[in-house]
Amino acid sequence: MRWLQRLIKLTQRERGFHLVTDEILDALPELREFPAGILNLLIQHTSAGLAVNENASPEVLWDFETWLDHTVPERAPYWTHTLEGPDDMPAHIKSALLGSTLALPVADGRLALGTWQGIYLCEHRDQGGPRSIMATAWGPD
Amino acid sequence: MRWLQRLIKLTQRERGFHLVTDEILDALPELREFPAGILNLLIQHTSAGLAVNENASPEVLWDFETWLDHTVPERAPYWTHTLEGPDDMPAHIKSALLGSTLALPVADGRLALGTWQGIYLCEHRDQGGPRSIMATAWGPD
Amino acid sequence: MRWLQRLIKLTQRERGFHLVTDEILDALPELREFPAGILNLLIQHTSAGLAVNENASPEVLWDFETWLDHTVPERAPYWTHTLEGPDDMPAHIKSALLGSTLALPVADGRLALGTWQGIYLCEHRDQGGPRSIMATAWGPD
Repeated sequence: MRWLQRLIKLTQRERGFHLVTDEILDALPELREFPAGILNLLIQHTSAGLAVNENASPEVLWDFETWLDHTVPERAPYWTHTLEGPDDMPAHIKSALLGSTLALPVADGRLALGTWQGIYLCEHRDQGGPRSIMATAWGPD
Repeated sequence: MRWLQRLIKLTQRERGFHLVTDEILDALPELREFPAGILNLLIQHTSAGLAVNENASPEVLWDFETWLDHTVPERAPYWTHTLEGPDDMPAHIKSALLGSTLALPVADGRLALGTWQGIYLCEHRDQGGPRSIMATAWGPD
Repeated sequence: MRWLQRLIKLTQRERGFHLVTDEILDALPELREFPAGILNLLIQHTSAGLAVNENASPEVLWDFETWLDHTVPERAPYWTHTLEGPDDMPAHIKSALLGSTLALPVADGRLALGTWQGIYLCEHRDQGGPRSIMATAWGPD
């Protein structure tokens, strides 16, 4: 059994949606030696998320941000957790909606994603800082 | 360690929610030999999704579609990614909300789901075509 | 390869969001012997969910419930699945939005979560009863 576990620190991004497939794979060169496997990712934060979606059009990334801001509004009258700023509680909800973890197949040393799929860093805070991702991969010898 | 990885092509479905548990298991007969394990599924598309939910009432499937259409509306004024038709950008959002991957336990050669749980194909496009799922399973000998 | 699979019965909680990290880990004492691994959890119900989010402020838990109740309303005119009570169909949607499964990294015998992360039981029914979770963990020797 092959096994790999490593904490990855992503470079800081501004609020919004960002493709990070290449940055994650560059931090895990051993994956190229896996004939098959799974790559599990956990973002160790509660106001950012990970998702898999379209890797081609920047408009798709913008529209994700617009829809989420519309659907999980800042300064809504029902928020009680407001101490950490207006972007904080919506960021928690957005993080849970899109999710904090991914488990993606690996085949022939590469992620077995669809042609148009990439990994999104979903940064929901105005000043999120650099984000840590615990990457774990396993597979047969 | 047992290991199984196979690309499954689902038969084409119309827009909406569809139970595909049996179709997926029929494509993976080796799972019956796993004393324990995990089955990971990735749908290799960005406008369809996978979810686990109620396997009995067709009304539940319809209400999923109705709620999503209400909450992620087509032709909203804020969409910028409209080139691929009015159903495309909402389909990306819906896919990310419900998720593209599942990791389900296997015990005694069967999915260890709850009594009322089944696997949903969430088809968010009017003409989605057949969908590909990369299935990966592993477990002890 | 290490392998552990066990059905956990959580104590019954009222409707809302509840931190259950300690209750789950207490049911899996063997995890402390895993040098590395993954813990997969499936809640075997379609009207409750599992999520990872903030483990410190009770206000965050309340605001999750408030936002979900606002966004997936009971007694909306479009529901057709109303036979099991007004809280049932919204509970199915909420369960699928936040998800039924988690796959969390283990390092040095502990969950490798971020400082502020904990596991939420998301109880979406008024009388959900005790909830069953199938826990599966694996890792290298």
